[in-house]
Amino acid sequence: MTQQNRQWLLARRPQGEPQLTDFELVESPVSTLQPGQVLLRAQYLSLDPYMRGRMNEGRSYVQPVALGAVMCGETVSEVVESRNERLPVGTFVRADLGWQDFAVSDGAALRVVDLTIAPASIWLSVLGMPAITAHIGLLDIGQPKAGETVVVSAAAGAVGSMVGQIAKIKGCHTVGIAGGAAKCDYGVRELGFDACLDYKTAAWRDALKQATPRGIDVYFDNVGGEILDAVLGRMNPFSRLPLCGLISQYNATEAYGIKNFRSILVNRIRVQGFIVFDRPELWSAANTDLIAWYRAGQLKHREWITSGLENAPRAFIGLLRGENLGKALVKIV
Amino acid sequence: MTQQNRQWLLARRPQGEPQLTDFELVESPVSTLQPGQVLLRAQYLSLDPYMRGRMNEGRSYVQPVALGAVMCGETVSEVVESRNERLPVGTFVRADLGWQDFAVSDGAALRVVDLTIAPASIWLSVLGMPAITAHIGLLDIGQPKAGETVVVSAAAGAVGSMVGQIAKIKGCHTVGIAGGAAKCDYGVRELGFDACLDYKTAAWRDALKQATPRGIDVYFDNVGGEILDAVLGRMNPFSRLPLCGLISQYNATEAYGIKNFRSILVNRIRVQGFIVFDRPELWSAANTDLIAWYRAGQLKHREWITSGLENAPRAFIGLLRGENLGKALVKIV
Repeated sequence: MTQQNRQWLLARRPQGEPQLTDFELVESPVSTLQPGQVLLRAQYLSLDPYMRGRMNEGRSYVQPVALGAVMCGETVSEVVESRNERLPVGTFVRADLGWQDFAVSDGAALRVVDLTIAPASIWLSVLGMPAITAHIGLLDIGQPKAGETVVVSAAAGAVGSMVGQIAKIKGCHTVGIAGGAAKCDYGVRELGFDACLDYKTAAWRDALKQATPRGIDVYFDNVGGEILDAVLGRMNPFSRLPLCGLISQYNATEAYGIKNFRSILVNRIRVQGFIVFDRPELWSAANTDLIAWYRAGQLKHREWITSGLENAPRAFIGLLRGENLGKALVKIV
Repeated sequence: MTQQNRQWLLARRPQGEPQLTDFELVESPVSTLQPGQVLLRAQYLSLDPYMRGRMNEGRSYVQPVALGAVMCGETVSEVVESRNERLPVGTFVRADLGWQDFAVSDGAALRVVDLTIAPASIWLSVLGMPAITAHIGLLDIGQPKAGETVVVSAAAGAVGSMVGQIAKIKGCHTVGIAGGAAKCDYGVRELGFDACLDYKTAAWRDALKQATPRGIDVYFDNVGGEILDAVLGRMNPFSRLPLCGLISQYNATEAYGIKNFRSILVNRIRVQGFIVFDRPELWSAANTDLIAWYRAGQLKHREWITSGLENAPRAFIGLLRGENLGKALVKIV
């Protein structure tokens, strides 16, 4: 019996917040394998804010998802059929399959993961791309020194939670910014932030001031917009600003204007936009650190798991609204 | 007979554009010298946009000028009396005397200039701080490679005109942005820009697009605001943005909001605010380059000279309005 593959296609380019009708679920039979190929079955799909950018037309750091194409995304998948002796059935890999159950691969872009080190989902969170993003952005671009103050936005998110924990490992005073009391409690009690500020409260700017009495040396930004503007006003001379995301702007139909740009001049701030793929030469060292810290129990994490590929669009919309607490994943099997 | 010294004091902190009444001219007798001291008489005073920032209260990269204090500024001055054998009468020096005729110095912060290399005023322009600013900002921060496209704003100004010429010496495609046809003609005909765009014309954004067919690799910004926002939309992946000034914002009572901040993320731009004093270790090499290029006739320049210390405030207001063509100087004697 031929297996059926479900795929989520990009049906429409969203205006503002994505709608369920922007996605379309289709089914088709799984192809038979050619020599050298393997059939992968996705176990977990990672949902990440960057995917919103891929849904837009126009120049970005990578090609947008074409209309009618499968939505992009990283998975941990299992080899369920193999005509490739290097990848026997039962091997687990990280693979950019996108939002679908199955895919055929020649094996070239797959990275084998060792489930004796950590279970499958962990390879998409604290040992995955969000963690490598945090490591490279904080340590290579942010260059924090022990005793300095590191602030990170979207602090309870997959990247932000790792930034805070790595900064703490490096001896920094760490302050998170997140939306809502639950995320802030999680930041302080579980992730070990020295303070975590709820930007949805009116007094959060005052709280930022109190939480950063010596100013801010590194601001790892995932959100942009008003929060970035406020933080710019607390940055120290010669501080660094790794710019990793602008989630507050992804659904915006009109861009927020950054008024405090002057702080970049006055404080001689270094702002560096980056994505994790810019620095492949740093991945191996980052992986080594992350695995060591994970094994030593130094990396806390939570997962926000949605069951069933059919629910991926709803979960993704929730992620963009900040409904998740922990890494957003879709459990497919 | 005791000589009289005239001084321009900061009388009021300007709201928006400085007014003549924000300055006050006072006279007092020149002090007598103590052993080790020299009496300096200013010959040229440099007027520079950064002085507007010093007139404001509040945190900036240096202390603001205090109310009632002498306006800050660099001069080329002559030693007219000396009780310091290292600095005989007739020596010319660069000195931060501020807006006044005379000052007493112990010699510590003076840098002797050699008038056989270049006349006095040149040590405030193509061999002075604006040129060193251009050198460090363009070459160390901007890191242009031959064949890349360099754009600079305030292109006919003291810093911008040097940025363009140094970029040309380094083999770059150079595009200036300036206000008015006269400055743009000067940019292309005398300074050697490949194109110079008049931002006061309605079509300048289209002109920018045409003048930068391969995008922009380095944007040396002196102005901020709307021009910065437009240029951000043309920046290439991995481009660099040395942020030297924000002259469009200095008189603004409400900050312009930068809408195109997203380009910094998408194109992984490096933005670096800087002032020339951040990198003292680079001054000597910059001076060596500048003197060599000047002697080889590779550095064109113009001066916009106002006669008489009494006219300094009027000239400074004109500089902020962009009325100058060439380096703004006040000839004092």
